Amino acid sequence: VKRVIVTGASGFIGRTTLSALLPRGFEVHAVSRHPPPANGPDGVRWITGNLLDPAGAEALIQQVGPTHLLHLAWYAEPGEFWRSTENLRWVEASLRLIRAFAAQGGRRAVVAGSCAEYEWTQRLHCAEGRTPCHPATLYGASKYALHLVIERYAAEAGLSLGWGRVFFVFGPGESPARLGGSVARSLVLDEPAPLSHGEQVRDFLYVGDLGEAFVALLDSPVEGAVNLASGRAIRIRDLAEALAAAAGRTDLLRFGVRPSPPGEPDVLTAEVRRLREEVGWSPSATLEERAADTISWWQTKLTADVLPRGHE
Amino acid sequence: VKRVIVTGASGFIGRTTLSALLPRGFEVHAVSRHPPPANGPDGVRWITGNLLDPAGAEALIQQVGPTHLLHLAWYAEPGEFWRSTENLRWVEASLRLIRAFAAQGGRRAVVAGSCAEYEWTQRLHCAEGRTPCHPATLYGASKYALHLVIERYAAEAGLSLGWGRVFFVFGPGESPARLGGSVARSLVLDEPAPLSHGEQVRDFLYVGDLGEAFVALLDSPVEGAVNLASGRAIRIRDLAEALAAAAGRTDLLRFGVRPSPPGEPDVLTAEVRRLREEVGWSPSATLEERAADTISWWQTKLTADVLPRGHE
Repeated sequence: VKRVIVTGASGFIGRTTLSALLPRGFEVHAVSRHPPPANGPDGVRWITGNLLDPAGAEALIQQVGPTHLLHLAWYAEPGEFWRSTENLRWVEASLRLIRAFAAQGGRRAVVAGSCAEYEWTQRLHCAEGRTPCHPATLYGASKYALHLVIERYAAEAGLSLGWGRVFFVFGPGESPARLGGSVARSLVLDEPAPLSHGEQVRDFLYVGDLGEAFVALLDSPVEGAVNLASGRAIRIRDLAEALAAAAGRTDLLRFGVRPSPPGEPDVLTAEVRRLREEVGWSPSATLEERAADTISWWQTKLTADVLPRGHE
Repeated sequence: VKRVIVTGASGFIGRTTLSALLPRGFEVHAVSRHPPPANGPDGVRWITGNLLDPAGAEALIQQVGPTHLLHLAWYAEPGEFWRSTENLRWVEASLRLIRAFAAQGGRRAVVAGSCAEYEWTQRLHCAEGRTPCHPATLYGASKYALHLVIERYAAEAGLSLGWGRVFFVFGPGESPARLGGSVARSLVLDEPAPLSHGEQVRDFLYVGDLGEAFVALLDSPVEGAVNLASGRAIRIRDLAEALAAAAGRTDLLRFGVRPSPPGEPDVLTAEVRRLREEVGWSPSATLEERAADTISWWQTKLTADVLPRGHE
């Protein structure tokens, strides 16, 4: 039996992994600080728990006895997470969790890394093992440091470990304090959507596809860092325009209204050879289809939000 | 007032820092899992505590209210420490300690790093900031990862942080399971001292000098990684011969009897420009003088050990 613990299971990325795990035969134990969501997939066993509690991880592992671990939980407050002290607490919690998992006999773990582990230059195409890791932020340093330690630990403990580096993500459930969430929400509310110049080139992946990619990596024997990205370089402008086209409101985009954050690369894209060839996963839908899925989700959500409580 | 917490204070290195801190005007709070040593310097306040206890660090910091932190505690079992799971627990404990220290208003911290953080090649002269860090062991990865995180954290938290990289150390109190301790003990016991070929070139520092170097770094504003080493490249054979000469028993050295451990560099030495010029510290005694100090300590210890208990 493949019994997996998913941490951060009610988060933006985590919730999308659950429905990808079930058809692959995983017994899914979803961990979250929050009560189980009302509309999650059937067959998932929810556990309410806080991994920052010093005894939390060990109790969780004892209770479930997992063969697999998909560790996505981290401090993710938009804007704040780059510099927050919470990053240290999540390094600590993650080390505790992985120690407990391996000690109990866990076989395969996948942990969420980040493109922020790489050394950012003005124009950067990130390739695992070739692009230097020299994180400029506390968040990036914390993720990279965790990877350094658990990679060596996994080798000593006989644990199979994949490290999925997340790039840029959009889709249902995204916070309105983030780029995609802000634009999609404005468009559906018929409000102007303020943006920077939008010429920055990025690799954007739909969050549901990222969930699939994480699960494909978990269900594979691939070890080490793997970029989880689409392999498609687009401009932020292209994403905004795809969302606006799906909403039928290209007139609401306001490029150049917001400043471009300092220190951000002009180009930040991902080499996805490992994901495509070793893990065997690549996205099947187009940007336009995923933009439509995103707008559709916001339309449903915002309609529900304006209904009185009894109608939910 | 300069109020310092020293962790690992009863250890091989830690105990030598105490007498170096007192004349610089530090109020010294020495932390150890063990009861206070009988023969420590006067004026040191001992605290028995275990930093691996999740609540241990915070309680300690609250109790003392330190302005300075000298964090030397780590898992150090000879032979075992390179690959032990305990390394993860010490990363966790160190992050907790440094968070608690900064949160309480601590100003200046120095933490023990290691030459094992560098990427080892067959002939290596380690220079901070120039020699790549690519640790081959779990111990080295854990130290380097801790450094990566707390360096960024210190910048965010307004903490002044020095990172003292330890190279090769010998002197009083060394475990007989380590090179210098094994040789010195054998010589004083009139037993043959088995060694490898001894041609490996290393930077050896007397443990009392290392204690002084740590304290000089702590009492300076120098930030980032600093190699704490003698700047003198000698062969292992030279160290053994200096100890044997001090003991008057060069006839007891048995070179070539032990295998040379695989993966060990032929040359592993330290660039000490930062320590000399920025911190302003360099060793004052010769290898011969420090070898004599070491043999003298072992003679006293082994004489005491053979006396009945009442005579100690």
